[in-house]
Amino acid sequence: MDAAVTESPIDRLSGLLGPEMAAVNTLIRERMASRHAPRIPEVTAHLVEAGGKRLRPLLTLAAAKLFDYQGPYHIHLAATVEFIHTATLLHDDVVDESEQRRGRPTANLLWDNKSSVLVGDYLLARAFQLMTDTGVMRVLEILSNASATISEGEVLQLSAAQDIATDESVYLQVIRGKTAALFSAATEVGAVIAGADEARVKALFDFGDALGIAFQIADDLLDYGGSSAAIGKNTGDDFRERKLTLPVIKALARADEQELAFWRRTIEKGDQRDGDLDEALRIMTRHGALESARDDALAWSAKARSALETLPDNEIRELLDELAEFVVMRIA
Amino acid sequence: MDAAVTESPIDRLSGLLGPEMAAVNTLIRERMASRHAPRIPEVTAHLVEAGGKRLRPLLTLAAAKLFDYQGPYHIHLAATVEFIHTATLLHDDVVDESEQRRGRPTANLLWDNKSSVLVGDYLLARAFQLMTDTGVMRVLEILSNASATISEGEVLQLSAAQDIATDESVYLQVIRGKTAALFSAATEVGAVIAGADEARVKALFDFGDALGIAFQIADDLLDYGGSSAAIGKNTGDDFRERKLTLPVIKALARADEQELAFWRRTIEKGDQRDGDLDEALRIMTRHGALESARDDALAWSAKARSALETLPDNEIRELLDELAEFVVMRIA
Repeated sequence: MDAAVTESPIDRLSGLLGPEMAAVNTLIRERMASRHAPRIPEVTAHLVEAGGKRLRPLLTLAAAKLFDYQGPYHIHLAATVEFIHTATLLHDDVVDESEQRRGRPTANLLWDNKSSVLVGDYLLARAFQLMTDTGVMRVLEILSNASATISEGEVLQLSAAQDIATDESVYLQVIRGKTAALFSAATEVGAVIAGADEARVKALFDFGDALGIAFQIADDLLDYGGSSAAIGKNTGDDFRERKLTLPVIKALARADEQELAFWRRTIEKGDQRDGDLDEALRIMTRHGALESARDDALAWSAKARSALETLPDNEIRELLDELAEFVVMRIA
Repeated sequence: MDAAVTESPIDRLSGLLGPEMAAVNTLIRERMASRHAPRIPEVTAHLVEAGGKRLRPLLTLAAAKLFDYQGPYHIHLAATVEFIHTATLLHDDVVDESEQRRGRPTANLLWDNKSSVLVGDYLLARAFQLMTDTGVMRVLEILSNASATISEGEVLQLSAAQDIATDESVYLQVIRGKTAALFSAATEVGAVIAGADEARVKALFDFGDALGIAFQIADDLLDYGGSSAAIGKNTGDDFRERKLTLPVIKALARADEQELAFWRRTIEKGDQRDGDLDEALRIMTRHGALESARDDALAWSAKARSALETLPDNEIRELLDELAEFVVMRIA
């Protein structure tokens, strides 16, 4: 076939929405400038130019274009979503004491924690200015609710971290906060700005929500090498950082006394030794925890795809459908 | 006279607006709750219950009541303003590595920096939800602009700190960001929600702006003992933290070579010895820097009072006028 079919659906969406994405990038550069504080564009450029996939703004543009919206406010909303995302990354890096993101040193290492916190605040304020520009109260509600869910999820993750009583419902709340809330807000505001009817707005919300959850479960699974439990280059980061992600939660739910002691020592107390990651993988495999997490991700992916069924049948919908398949492809 | 005249205008405004302030406090407690993350009210209660003066929400209520607004949205906006203020305090505590605020240990010491960053973000999101509840786009514009100015001012302060080239115009931008922007937004949205005409909305903005600037200059001056240069209990904190506040900026503008070397060593390089604070005060006194800063504060206070002239002549206006006098009383 032709070359296009080997490209990811993200690349193909980017291509299809090329002029709009260019307008989003221009708006982002304009709005992250600061007349008074040159430190701000220094810090944000580092992140914004780092060449992320721009998946979230792409979702907003796609949702609006699905209904043939001609603009101009999908551009503002896409930039808003990217600003909220970037602010979250800046604050996460302080919180996690991270040293790298996307293969570069994080802003908090290059500058300092102060700059990361304050520039993140600046981007949040800019995000609210951008959405206010649309004059549409409904999108302000959606995006301020999403912001609250994001930070609530992050605080919940703090208190749930290293608490082996954390169950799957808490995990779902945490990943809705850290990932799915912005995905679903991104698709929902795209539909709202395009004037879609309530049922279709709801369908776009459901799509973004399920896509985000599938995406995050897949990510957490890959940290244990995917369902094959093959140890890759970045395998085990979550284990070493004592993060209670879905595979561990599933293994914990089926743990015998000896396994419980193992999780208590390695995750709760953080007393980790050579060979512990291998042992964690053996326990997970024994209980089918990785396969079960994979099944959950696939089910969320299927849910995302079925949310699209009632939407206009066009090229955008086709690509969103492929995107929902794509985010779990690495673990299927 | 009666006991009331010995009370501060803040206390008297609080008394006059008692039922409204009670409604604000109820709304604050409601909205800072989190169903999913109990850590959030723990952290915020610590700050919100610490018994600050609640000056900013009081300004919003007063501005609305000046025009006899009957509600209900001045309550939402007053709570919004307090949430933005509290979020700023939480993020400032991370930034400054402060250990005390209002005589209590700061949240970042009691919990950790992570909680301060994330709970601050949560309060900001809650603030945006609250203002969205009003359905009035204009107040969203004002408050999102204020949020951007606040963080811009804080970033500017970071880069201006310890840079002895900082001049009075940069200082003014910094204190507009850290103090006056929220004061002026607080009074402006009160007027907007009450449906005041444009000239009066502008007058309320000008009042809040000048009041905030007078307040901050007075605060910075008191850190050097006020215009009398008397060393009090908390004198010299800014000097030790190498903050370039107005008295130092004024002394720097008039410094000879030897004095310049002194400021370079103590502020720029941070090499401070016993007796340096006394020497700083001697240099400031020699150049009349403290008196000049006091004159500026008094001029801003007068500007705030004259902004009130065209407004409805009632008890609220009288108290706002006294408030503008009161904030500089400690240094007059």
